[in-house]
Amino acid sequence: MIKAAVNGFGTIGRRVAYALSLQEDISVTGIVKNTPDYVAKLASERYNIYVPDGKRMEAFEKEGIKVKGTLKDLLAASDVVVDCTPEGMGKENLELYKERKVRAIFQGGEEKDVADASFNAYSNFEESIGKNYVRVVSCNTTALARTLFPLQESFGISEVNATLLRRATDQNDSKKGPINAVEPSLKIPSHHAPDLRTVMHGLNVETVAIKVPTTLMHVHVVEVHLSKPAQLRDIMDSWEARRRIMLISGKDGRSSTAQVMDMAREMGRDRSDLYEIPIWKESVTLNGNRLRYIQAVHQESDVIPENVDAIRAMFSTASAADSIGRTDRSLSIKGRVI
Amino acid sequence: MIKAAVNGFGTIGRRVAYALSLQEDISVTGIVKNTPDYVAKLASERYNIYVPDGKRMEAFEKEGIKVKGTLKDLLAASDVVVDCTPEGMGKENLELYKERKVRAIFQGGEEKDVADASFNAYSNFEESIGKNYVRVVSCNTTALARTLFPLQESFGISEVNATLLRRATDQNDSKKGPINAVEPSLKIPSHHAPDLRTVMHGLNVETVAIKVPTTLMHVHVVEVHLSKPAQLRDIMDSWEARRRIMLISGKDGRSSTAQVMDMAREMGRDRSDLYEIPIWKESVTLNGNRLRYIQAVHQESDVIPENVDAIRAMFSTASAADSIGRTDRSLSIKGRVI
Repeated sequence: MIKAAVNGFGTIGRRVAYALSLQEDISVTGIVKNTPDYVAKLASERYNIYVPDGKRMEAFEKEGIKVKGTLKDLLAASDVVVDCTPEGMGKENLELYKERKVRAIFQGGEEKDVADASFNAYSNFEESIGKNYVRVVSCNTTALARTLFPLQESFGISEVNATLLRRATDQNDSKKGPINAVEPSLKIPSHHAPDLRTVMHGLNVETVAIKVPTTLMHVHVVEVHLSKPAQLRDIMDSWEARRRIMLISGKDGRSSTAQVMDMAREMGRDRSDLYEIPIWKESVTLNGNRLRYIQAVHQESDVIPENVDAIRAMFSTASAADSIGRTDRSLSIKGRVI
Repeated sequence: MIKAAVNGFGTIGRRVAYALSLQEDISVTGIVKNTPDYVAKLASERYNIYVPDGKRMEAFEKEGIKVKGTLKDLLAASDVVVDCTPEGMGKENLELYKERKVRAIFQGGEEKDVADASFNAYSNFEESIGKNYVRVVSCNTTALARTLFPLQESFGISEVNATLLRRATDQNDSKKGPINAVEPSLKIPSHHAPDLRTVMHGLNVETVAIKVPTTLMHVHVVEVHLSKPAQLRDIMDSWEARRRIMLISGKDGRSSTAQVMDMAREMGRDRSDLYEIPIWKESVTLNGNRLRYIQAVHQESDVIPENVDAIRAMFSTASAADSIGRTDRSLSIKGRVI
């Protein structure tokens, strides 16, 4: 049994803790929470609660939340920590993890040099085998790697151009914008292209990112130049063989991210999450070797399966196929066509 | 065992079917769906699917969805039908229900004269006992009745003025607006005031309704003139005694409907729903006999417990307290302070 801690209990941390708690070979030793808010109160019904340091204890006790100890106590009881702290804090935490001899997983908000390897379950599981520090790439990069890797494997890719329509903020936030403007990231390529190359080395990719006023999902418009000629049917087959990709149709009502996320609610998923990357079938078009498609990304949850698989890679306890299968079964990722 | 059908499987119908399926004394005979969309496909894994009439069969079969029969077949197998069809259709369906001798529950989108009684579990459960046709009032009216009735019972109410900030559309919709405008309903009082009087007779209430660009929840600003002097503590107590009202604090992060709905996700509720009416504690203020408070309403789900209770009232199988208790336990409505 691998003993795993979760440091940080925001959008990603709470979902990682949930997913880990479903695994037969992993136990959750506890979670670290910084503020004694409603999320902490509800979390205390399911997990051992720890605080970053002793100074935070009092605030939690005042709210009636039982605290088991500090981050250092939690690390002493854990084999690995999944760092889900805000962007940039992971790097600061790395020294502590090294000092305490605890392996660690970081999220995509960190720079790639925080870890020994960047991770995507489909494209480069093997590079994290036996590693002590691994970074799961961001939600957007994970989504691109998931749908591009099967194409690369089957047909080769000579060029990728992707436009990322990014959600403004997450559903539980009411502070950030934009709420009535479209905000392009003026750095081209956006940081997603080099990030994608950390899990698909040498890929010839450029990305443009634009923020739009929505909280539900990101949407990617992807253009791929395939190296070998391909039929549309073969392309679909390469995606259908992967459970974490979901081919959906706009015809049966799923014409926007509103209905795609409604589908997740109807599927009865924890927190109404959608771990899979949906691709709209109708958008998949081929002009010679030039393929185009549109996909959506539930930014809050698509990286969750990867955080589970990364642990098994680091501890060398399962092959890629075996780990992905176990993770998918635990989260009801069935690769089915709905 | 009461055999219940659900006619219409939109926002309310799907949730009513789910809630009914949890009851030990009620069985779901089937649901009627009009279009073979993704919602129908997922529903077919849980429920017997029926169509409004024979003409719709083919479209469902084309999508691979097994259809058990038509609405008339379903009515023949049911004691009661919960009509969750679009606004105004319930009235048309009434004749069929009468002809087939099946009792029926209608939703708040119908005029009050469609039924023998309008229903709210707290304020007038008894009026629906033994009735054949009952209307559960709308999400907004249900929310007002829930938080006003305890006040009326304990202190008396001489006057209510409420401003309803209404969500523009539901989360799974991407057609309706407004998305960037505030749209007052220019009929004052709005239809909510007379609707509220169908479950709280003679109440001196006026309402103003304004649509705002959000999909998460409605928000009500309520002003109540109490007949008897009251202390703030007594007012809080009258609400805390009711499980379907939830006193929350903005201090611990729940400063907007974004965090309130996030709380529902953290609670692990089906479809991330919030059945309770949350009242922000800090907003509850008393100036003489004039009370003010702000509450939120998850429009997709607050009427769901009422649809269950209405069945028990109609069949005289439980008292108000007994039915409310059973419904609340089945839906994990605990009346707890989080």
